[in-house]
Amino acid sequence: MLYPHLGINKEGHLTVGGLDAVALAKEYGTPLYLLDEDVIRENCRTYRAAAKAAFGENAKILYASKALSYKGIYRLMAEEGLGVDCVSCGEIRTAVAAGMPAANIYFHGNNKTDEDLRTALSLGVGRIVVDNEDELRALSAIAEEMKKRQCILLRITPGIDPHTHRAVNTGRVDSKFGSAIATGQAAAITKEALTLPGVALVGYHCHIGSQIFDAEPFLDAARMMLDFAGAIHDETGFPPTELNLGGGFGVPYTATDPVPSYPDMIAALGKVFDEKIKEHGLPAPAVRLEPGRSLVAAAGVTLYTVGAVKEIPGFKTYISVDGGMPDNPRYALYHSQYTALIANRADAASELTATLAGRCCESGDLLGEDMRIARAARGDVLAVLTTGAYNYSMASNYNRIPRPPIVAISGENARLAVRRESFEDLMRNEL
Amino acid sequence: MLYPHLGINKEGHLTVGGLDAVALAKEYGTPLYLLDEDVIRENCRTYRAAAKAAFGENAKILYASKALSYKGIYRLMAEEGLGVDCVSCGEIRTAVAAGMPAANIYFHGNNKTDEDLRTALSLGVGRIVVDNEDELRALSAIAEEMKKRQCILLRITPGIDPHTHRAVNTGRVDSKFGSAIATGQAAAITKEALTLPGVALVGYHCHIGSQIFDAEPFLDAARMMLDFAGAIHDETGFPPTELNLGGGFGVPYTATDPVPSYPDMIAALGKVFDEKIKEHGLPAPAVRLEPGRSLVAAAGVTLYTVGAVKEIPGFKTYISVDGGMPDNPRYALYHSQYTALIANRADAASELTATLAGRCCESGDLLGEDMRIARAARGDVLAVLTTGAYNYSMASNYNRIPRPPIVAISGENARLAVRRESFEDLMRNEL
Repeated sequence: MLYPHLGINKEGHLTVGGLDAVALAKEYGTPLYLLDEDVIRENCRTYRAAAKAAFGENAKILYASKALSYKGIYRLMAEEGLGVDCVSCGEIRTAVAAGMPAANIYFHGNNKTDEDLRTALSLGVGRIVVDNEDELRALSAIAEEMKKRQCILLRITPGIDPHTHRAVNTGRVDSKFGSAIATGQAAAITKEALTLPGVALVGYHCHIGSQIFDAEPFLDAARMMLDFAGAIHDETGFPPTELNLGGGFGVPYTATDPVPSYPDMIAALGKVFDEKIKEHGLPAPAVRLEPGRSLVAAAGVTLYTVGAVKEIPGFKTYISVDGGMPDNPRYALYHSQYTALIANRADAASELTATLAGRCCESGDLLGEDMRIARAARGDVLAVLTTGAYNYSMASNYNRIPRPPIVAISGENARLAVRRESFEDLMRNEL
Repeated sequence: MLYPHLGINKEGHLTVGGLDAVALAKEYGTPLYLLDEDVIRENCRTYRAAAKAAFGENAKILYASKALSYKGIYRLMAEEGLGVDCVSCGEIRTAVAAGMPAANIYFHGNNKTDEDLRTALSLGVGRIVVDNEDELRALSAIAEEMKKRQCILLRITPGIDPHTHRAVNTGRVDSKFGSAIATGQAAAITKEALTLPGVALVGYHCHIGSQIFDAEPFLDAARMMLDFAGAIHDETGFPPTELNLGGGFGVPYTATDPVPSYPDMIAALGKVFDEKIKEHGLPAPAVRLEPGRSLVAAAGVTLYTVGAVKEIPGFKTYISVDGGMPDNPRYALYHSQYTALIANRADAASELTATLAGRCCESGDLLGEDMRIARAARGDVLAVLTTGAYNYSMASNYNRIPRPPIVAISGENARLAVRRESFEDLMRNEL
C-alpha cells in the first residue's frame, strides 16, 4: 500500500483509516471522495514542528487551500493552528464562514480585481500578496479610499526552474506570476511599494512550482530571495519582517515516485536561511511556508463503480467507471499518474494492464493508461488513491454530472463533510 | 470579424447580435458568457433543411447537448424541432425539465450505470444508444424487470481516424466507445441484441470524432456503417430502421481555420447513403445527425475585465483577465486556439503579441499564447470569441471562482438565461 493509513481487511477490502471502503461506497454511493482527516492533522503537525525547529517560534504554516477548498478543511486548519493561502474571494469567504480568523488569511493571485481587493480589505485579511504594479497601485488607491493601510508581501519571481511539469512551474522568469529579480522589476516594485500610502510592505513571497521532490530548488530560491532582500536592505534600509517561501513539496502518487522527507527539506532550508540572513546582516524575518497538496493529497481516495470492461483484441482493455474528468481532470490536463485498485478485492494480483476510462463522452476522459490492476467486472468498486488534492477543487459538472460528496474519516468514524450535488443544484441558476 | 453576427459600433465597441458588448459587460459584470440565440436558431434551420434535402422527411437533427447544457438551450432546441443527444441523467433531467419530450432524447455514453438505465426507462427516453455488451445485458435485464422493451441503437466503431486531436477522436478501433467492426465485436453485439427480450434494436450509431472539416471521414464512416448494416442484413435479415451518423462537424475559431459548408458536407453524405443502401438492398433507414459544437460555438462570446498587463523584457507580455480555466478549460486541456480582442477598442490594430492569462494560481491557466491583440490596460473589456461550446458545460469552480452567467441575445434584446453563481451556491452542500 502506498500510504500507512491504507490497508486490507480480512474480507479483502481496501480500508481507509481503518474503515471498509466498500462499505462506505455502499452507504454513500459512488463516485465518492474519502478523506482521512487524521492524516491531514498529522501532516499539519509535522510541518509545524519542522518549521519551528528550522525557523523558530514565529514561523507559520499556511495551507494553500486551492488544493482542496471546502468549509470543513478551513475549520480543521484553524484547529491545527495553521493560517491559509487563499486565491480568490470565494476561498476567503469560505475560510471566514468556517471560522478561520481573517488575520490568518494570505490573499494570493496574479490578478485580483478591484472588487476582490475591496472585499479583502473589508474582511480584514492579514496579508495581501501583491503580484504586480497594476495591482499595487490599485490596492493602494482603494486602501486610501477606505482609509486603511494594508499589510502586503510582494510576489517575487526568483527565476528557478524546478524541472517539473510546465503547467505547474511558476518560478521561472517567464511567468504570469510576480515580478522577476532578473529583469529589475522586483526591485522596482519594491521601491514603489515603499512609497505608497495605502500599503505597508512587510516582506516577500515566492513560489517556484509544484511536485518538487528535491530540496535544492527550494534552497536556491531561498538564497535568491534573501540575496534580493539583502540588496534592497543595503540600498533602501528596508528589512523584511516576513519571508514567505511558498510551497510545492512533492507528493508520491505511485510506488515508483520518490518519498520526500518534508522535515529534512525544511531543516535544509533553515540552514540556508540562517547563513543568508547572517551574510546580509538582516534581522531574521518570520518565515511562512505554504504547503497545499502535501497536506491533503495522500488523505484522499476516490471510489467508483466499474461499469463496462471492454477488451479490444489486439489493442487494449478499457475499464470504465462512473466518474472521470468531472471529478478528477488531472489526467486529462497533465497526464498525472495515479495508483488504482479494485477495492472489493484489494488483495487480488494486478494481472491486467488497462486503461481506466471515465464516463464522459470524450476520448480524453481517462483516469490513467497502461495501469496495472486486478481483473474487474461490472459492479466492482474501484479506488483511485492520493486524490485529496486538486480533485474536488477542480471538479466540474461536465456532461452534467453532479459532483461527488466528501466523506471525512476521523478516528473510527466517517461523516458527510460535503453532500453530493443534486440535479436541482445543477439547474438552480438556470431560468 | 470571424462571424457575421459580430460587429463594431460607432463607439468602436464590439457588438454581438447588434448589442454593445461593453454595455452588457457593465450591466451584468464579468466574466460573462454572451450567447446569440438567433445564430443558434439559424444553424438549427440550416441543418434541418440540409438533412431533409439529403435524407428525406424522416431525417432528424439531434443536438449533442454536452456542448452546452442548460435549461434554456433544450427549450430552444425543442422549439426548433430538434431532438437531443444526452450523455447522463443530469442532461436528460434538464432536457425534460425544460420541456423536451422524452421521446426525442437519445441517451449516449460509454458507461451508463444501472441507476442511469432505470431513470432513462422511467422517463421514457426515445432511444438508448448501447455502448457495449455489459451495458446491453444490464439494460435488457432492467427493462424486463420493469416490464418494458427499450428501443436501442448500438454504438459501432467504424475505425476511422479523422486526424484530429487525440482527445476528441473517438472513431478509431482503439477507443473507449462502442464495438469495433474490425474486431468482429460489432457483429457479435448486434446478434446478441437481436436475441434479448428487454431491448428492440432499431439501428446503429457512430461518432468518429470532433472538429472535422473535410467531408471525407464522414463519407468513409457512412460507407463502413452501411456495409456493416448490409452484411448483418444479409446474414440475419435485420434491416436497421435508423442510422445515426453522429456529429463532429468542424467550427472555425480563428481567421486561418477553414470554413466548412455543413449543407455541402451533408449533401455529399446523402449521395453516399443513397448509393450504399441501393448496393446493399436495404430499406432506407431514418437518418440522424448529432451536431453539438457547430450549432452553438459561434454564438458564444466571453467577456472579461483586464487586470494586470505585465511585460517581461526579453520574454513576453501577459494580459491577465478575471476568468480563465474555470470558465474555459479548453486551452489548458487541448491548447485550443481562440480569437480575442479588446471589446472597448474593437477597431484598434492588433499591435501586440501576448499571452492571455487567467486568474487562477496555476501557470497552465492560460486562454492562449502568442495571440495578436491590441494594447490593453487594467479595466479594458476583453472578448474571447466562439466560446458557445464546451465552455459553460466544462466550467468548474477551480480556485473557488463562481461560474459566470449566460446572457442570451435574441432580436434586439438581452436577457439573463443563467444567473451568476453566488458564494452561497459554492458552500451550499458543505457541512
